[in-house]
Amino acid sequence: MSETPRRPPLMPLDDALARLLAAAAPLGRTEIVDTFDADGRVLAQDLVSALHVPPQDNSSMDGYAVRAADVRAAGVELPVTQRIAAGHAGGPLAPGSAARIFTGAPMPAGADAVVMQEDTQALDDGARVRLNVVPTPGQWVRAAGEDVTRGAAVLQKGERLAPASIGLAAGIGMASLPVAARPRVALFSTGDELVMPGAVPPEAMQPGAIYNSNRFFLRALLHRLGCAVSDLGIVPDDRDATLQALRQAADGHDLILTSGGVSVGEEDHIKPAVEQLGALDLWQIAMKPGKPFAYGSIAAPSSRRDAPNVDAPPSTVCHFMGLPGNPVSSYVTFLLLVRPFLLRLQGARDVALPTLAMRADFTLAKADKRREFLRARRNAQGGLELFGNQSSGVLTSAHWADGLIDLPAGQTIAAGDMVRFIPVRELLA
Amino acid sequence: MSETPRRPPLMPLDDALARLLAAAAPLGRTEIVDTFDADGRVLAQDLVSALHVPPQDNSSMDGYAVRAADVRAAGVELPVTQRIAAGHAGGPLAPGSAARIFTGAPMPAGADAVVMQEDTQALDDGARVRLNVVPTPGQWVRAAGEDVTRGAAVLQKGERLAPASIGLAAGIGMASLPVAARPRVALFSTGDELVMPGAVPPEAMQPGAIYNSNRFFLRALLHRLGCAVSDLGIVPDDRDATLQALRQAADGHDLILTSGGVSVGEEDHIKPAVEQLGALDLWQIAMKPGKPFAYGSIAAPSSRRDAPNVDAPPSTVCHFMGLPGNPVSSYVTFLLLVRPFLLRLQGARDVALPTLAMRADFTLAKADKRREFLRARRNAQGGLELFGNQSSGVLTSAHWADGLIDLPAGQTIAAGDMVRFIPVRELLA
Repeated sequence: MSETPRRPPLMPLDDALARLLAAAAPLGRTEIVDTFDADGRVLAQDLVSALHVPPQDNSSMDGYAVRAADVRAAGVELPVTQRIAAGHAGGPLAPGSAARIFTGAPMPAGADAVVMQEDTQALDDGARVRLNVVPTPGQWVRAAGEDVTRGAAVLQKGERLAPASIGLAAGIGMASLPVAARPRVALFSTGDELVMPGAVPPEAMQPGAIYNSNRFFLRALLHRLGCAVSDLGIVPDDRDATLQALRQAADGHDLILTSGGVSVGEEDHIKPAVEQLGALDLWQIAMKPGKPFAYGSIAAPSSRRDAPNVDAPPSTVCHFMGLPGNPVSSYVTFLLLVRPFLLRLQGARDVALPTLAMRADFTLAKADKRREFLRARRNAQGGLELFGNQSSGVLTSAHWADGLIDLPAGQTIAAGDMVRFIPVRELLA
Repeated sequence: MSETPRRPPLMPLDDALARLLAAAAPLGRTEIVDTFDADGRVLAQDLVSALHVPPQDNSSMDGYAVRAADVRAAGVELPVTQRIAAGHAGGPLAPGSAARIFTGAPMPAGADAVVMQEDTQALDDGARVRLNVVPTPGQWVRAAGEDVTRGAAVLQKGERLAPASIGLAAGIGMASLPVAARPRVALFSTGDELVMPGAVPPEAMQPGAIYNSNRFFLRALLHRLGCAVSDLGIVPDDRDATLQALRQAADGHDLILTSGGVSVGEEDHIKPAVEQLGALDLWQIAMKPGKPFAYGSIAAPSSRRDAPNVDAPPSTVCHFMGLPGNPVSSYVTFLLLVRPFLLRLQGARDVALPTLAMRADFTLAKADKRREFLRARRNAQGGLELFGNQSSGVLTSAHWADGLIDLPAGQTIAAGDMVRFIPVRELLA
């Protein structure tokens, strides 16, 4: 490799993201899962309700269903002609009578209001009731269809399901849901310096050796995004080992994700190995942390052997992404680039990072040429504080932070400035 | 049950939460899990690092390690006397020489700066190097211990582990972690009106019947909090069935969670059944949605049969919590009351709800006597918008919302007002 001076032009982050999303054709494989197991998955079809929710007008209180016109003054007494519990239909309510009714029970025909139990007095062992307030029509009545109207698309294709959306799907009677298949991700770390935690005790670590940490948070992040992860461990800095790992990984996976091995030095074997099997671009992205990033692809000839409940042809290309080895660089580039890519592979509608305008309660005097993603935490005063050491090697900063400040290139921060904040804890949901 | 007029005094939400947290003695059961599997769990001991991270000063770039004092002008040429790759220790650097070095490799003794490869030119087939810039001491060098110092408590007991914290634990060599055992939660819904999705098609639903939805989102929420869930399904509105479900649930669980059956009407069998087996308080909490809430406990005589890798005595009482049956009431009371309780059972340090001061971009003209939790969403202008129908039966509002506005009792909102916002999406992480 030549070592002539070169300063490759840096690629704007937005360009890198646009290129990745353009390459991220949704996999198209779907599967049917039990609604109980659908949390976090991406919906593969619109869900249209075949019924109103609630199905009928019903009482939102325990009390008495009446015709409001029958109760024009407090203290009216009415005969109680029926008793309607939740899940049981009553008969029509005769004028001048009341029905004992319980929360969730359907309103009897003719009734238009509920007087809550606390505003009544049962008389004659419950045969009659005194109504101590004057109801307004519609009072304590939940209207049929107020939550969901029959025929409405309750949840749209491309939504990422969360607990409330799962409840909504169950509420229209869906016992199972069509969701995007899990992206199959092969994960490995590269680097001769890496030692697996547990393999060598701290006191016996050789000079230059460090414990592998990236693979731990990357695997957790991948699981949180709904991926099926094949962990190929630590691959040595060696061309043959790298080629073998890539060949194995390209088979039956949608993405190979690595950390380490994408900087410009000659010790990095990822680039020639991926190029031998497919294509690779090494990008120098104008961001800090996280400058080096590799994107490419490897043909995956045997990926046609798919799971039985998959109903669309598989992709025949395996994407490749190489993250920098510095832990914070790896963590931040995952959130900013890999996460939207993996959501898009699942057909997710909304892959953009949410940002909030927040007040900086600190000063940052030194501007950087690159767009920075600063590890920051919200304080009790509603502002943001900065972690003291923003080095890309300090993973403690990512652990400490609530999120990232997205600071444009060349900009400083004065206390009181409004900045763009990416709430990372929310992204991890 | 008497139906004499009564208006029980409402309990402030903060009082209800304080009572629950006072009752939530941490379970004390811990287990050792693989670090890869520890995401979302609560750490049971401080983690103290037995080493510096990074262990030695090392290069943060591919380039050349030098003594800065040897390079006082751009264009200096030095012999390259060694080559140090990541994971390999070099020898001491002789004055007047340079070492080829790669990202992550330990600095050789004597060297105090790195010149990045792009600022150099290799000469004589790599035997010499021209340095085109003047390095400052410490340049592109990561200091030993800059992330973690030997002896530091990297992670504290009571922290809830997230991807970055798992990476941090791996980085100090922890292959497994002591975490709080999963709370064992028995879950059921009550109500004769409830039909299991899939059991009856929408067109065949009887009048008054609705699909069970609460149990779906509650189960998902419990899983997200690290609980082991025993799902007992739908229990009919019947005393014997309720007693049987409670007896079964009290055995080997830390919490019984139900939805429905806690309002004041006589159709609710939860109260007498729990009282028969233990103790129960029905609370009317001054919140909207979510007024009715039940807390109690049941003796759990046989709960001493525990999992083998559990090293502390089990609790001998099974907590009981009854949530309202209205879906939004159930969802909101879970987040505000059950979630902190379950985190505390796991010994979590931080159980308070995060809140953000945000601008309301809407008007709410009608004040409520109770403290309200309004379903709201952030808009592109950095403000909040309100879901149109805030009825406690409309689960669509919880699905649509990014979070809840915590509005004090008796207060209205004018556009532009600052309000307290609870970012629910973040809570679900």
